Amino acid sequence: MKLSRDDVAKLAGVSPTTVSRVLNNRGYISATTRQRVQDAMETLGYYPNELARSLSNNKSNLIGLIFPSLTNPFQMELISYLERILSRQGYKILICNSHHNQEEEKNFLSMLRRHQVEGVIVNSMNENLADYLIPDLNIVSIDRKINETIPVISCDNYAGGYLASQHLINQGCKKILYIGSITNDKHVDMDANKRYQAYKDSIKVAGLKPITLDMDFSISYQEKYQLIKQRLQSQSIDGVLADDSSAIATINAARDCKLSLPSQLKVVGFDGAELTLQHMPFLTTIRQPILQIAQNAVSILLAMINGEPYQSITNLPISLYQGYDNCI
Amino acid sequence: MKLSRDDVAKLAGVSPTTVSRVLNNRGYISATTRQRVQDAMETLGYYPNELARSLSNNKSNLIGLIFPSLTNPFQMELISYLERILSRQGYKILICNSHHNQEEEKNFLSMLRRHQVEGVIVNSMNENLADYLIPDLNIVSIDRKINETIPVISCDNYAGGYLASQHLINQGCKKILYIGSITNDKHVDMDANKRYQAYKDSIKVAGLKPITLDMDFSISYQEKYQLIKQRLQSQSIDGVLADDSSAIATINAARDCKLSLPSQLKVVGFDGAELTLQHMPFLTTIRQPILQIAQNAVSILLAMINGEPYQSITNLPISLYQGYDNCI
Repeated sequence: MKLSRDDVAKLAGVSPTTVSRVLNNRGYISATTRQRVQDAMETLGYYPNELARSLSNNKSNLIGLIFPSLTNPFQMELISYLERILSRQGYKILICNSHHNQEEEKNFLSMLRRHQVEGVIVNSMNENLADYLIPDLNIVSIDRKINETIPVISCDNYAGGYLASQHLINQGCKKILYIGSITNDKHVDMDANKRYQAYKDSIKVAGLKPITLDMDFSISYQEKYQLIKQRLQSQSIDGVLADDSSAIATINAARDCKLSLPSQLKVVGFDGAELTLQHMPFLTTIRQPILQIAQNAVSILLAMINGEPYQSITNLPISLYQGYDNCI
Repeated sequence: MKLSRDDVAKLAGVSPTTVSRVLNNRGYISATTRQRVQDAMETLGYYPNELARSLSNNKSNLIGLIFPSLTNPFQMELISYLERILSRQGYKILICNSHHNQEEEKNFLSMLRRHQVEGVIVNSMNENLADYLIPDLNIVSIDRKINETIPVISCDNYAGGYLASQHLINQGCKKILYIGSITNDKHVDMDANKRYQAYKDSIKVAGLKPITLDMDFSISYQEKYQLIKQRLQSQSIDGVLADDSSAIATINAARDCKLSLPSQLKVVGFDGAELTLQHMPFLTTIRQPILQIAQNAVSILLAMINGEPYQSITNLPISLYQGYDNCI
């Protein structure tokens, strides 16, 4: 005989609605009631088929996350927060790693749609994403403008780029290198491009010349490291502004080039994930408000799902984290 | 009119079976055929409901991952490999972060079962997991023995502990501190406990006394850092053997205690994730074969799903990575 939730309700001495609420992790349920329902389910060995429920409810409780990498501290912290916030709201997370590959991203979007996800949070950095958007799929984008209709969440990248540039200028740096994806600007509208604008503006006001190392964000750490090392060897740079991964590569390359930090070279990163600051407390960096980015992405996605109004938020506050004496 | 896969097959000029194979990402399909099918689906706007298919197939293509944290480099790399390997096999990943919490882990297991996952890969470190195991759920455990029936995958922790201890002994260390979860041994049968055994054996043979700092793996980096700093201040330690997170905390604490590395203190970590070695090339550590752990975990899970024989593998080869002069 197939067990139903009525059997669970009967054994637990609660209403079938209460059983549903426990199963859906929605609404207020006292700890005692929850426990009674769970005990009854365990005693009976009742595991309702969520797939069948999703189909009949037309509500999958699934959210997809598409990220270009799962081993970058910023992205992992973001995923960790998104998972925590969404799972407390009763959602389950399907995770997709596109490895910076456009085709994989496209396939994942389609797979997620087929799996009836209620929404997708995407931290994509590929071109032409707009070309293969799926109608009726709720999407929130982190850090990247995809088209006019998809909301974007990001920190205040201009303020971050400005603060980092000022920090180097105030310390007397004269030859400040900006490392980032510059030519890519044409194709991919990253909010992070505003960092470059802020750098150019600051440099100009300070009467300095911009120096850039155009580097695609999808290349490996080893490639970054080699490109940065070559640049440090060939040009007398005294300040560097970059994302954390490139900033760390710069610090490691400087060591190889026998440049001493901070006397000969000062570095400011961008991201400031918890793990990075714990492990490398010497790194000076612009901290992104990663928890707030996650909270806002979820709020907006839920607003979309519920048919409520929403808008992009691209000015979440950044701050300067000053590493101890800015050197290892 | 509702679209079916026959419509897609007709437009693409292939058989309905070929459409199914493209959708399931199974069997050999040429790139041209795949493209033709995908183009036809896009033209028609056909998104088959995978939930309905899962129900009728009795095959969800879902695998759950339960991890105690998503922001540790070892776990991040492992998840990244698992996602890559599983997604190439046509599986989708439901990710669950238990935050080292036993109750959450239990709820996740039950949620995954209700979602009809075909299997779960768990990197649990909680007690009593065996108590709430769900019958008929395929589970593979990484690093921890849960009971006699659940297969375990891990590196050769004894060999790793031995190699790390010998490295410190050979460099003349006399007061070697082992940092790890020691009292927890009674409750949680971690394969990593063999590292401690190897350390004790090596120390004894070398005629030294064991010195330990018993530290639960679930505490925060800041707590670790404080405990280690106190110990470095109160006791003249000249060698430390720990997991990477604690090894890095040791290096950072040593700096605060004005201990110079490697002359006064030598440190060997354990894990050696790619990210850690890239960012901190100075760290000497035992590298776990993370890709092999992931590959073996998936192979065994698939064997369980397919009713084939399988067994635990707890001797995957480790190696010593020697950081440059072992200091920052």
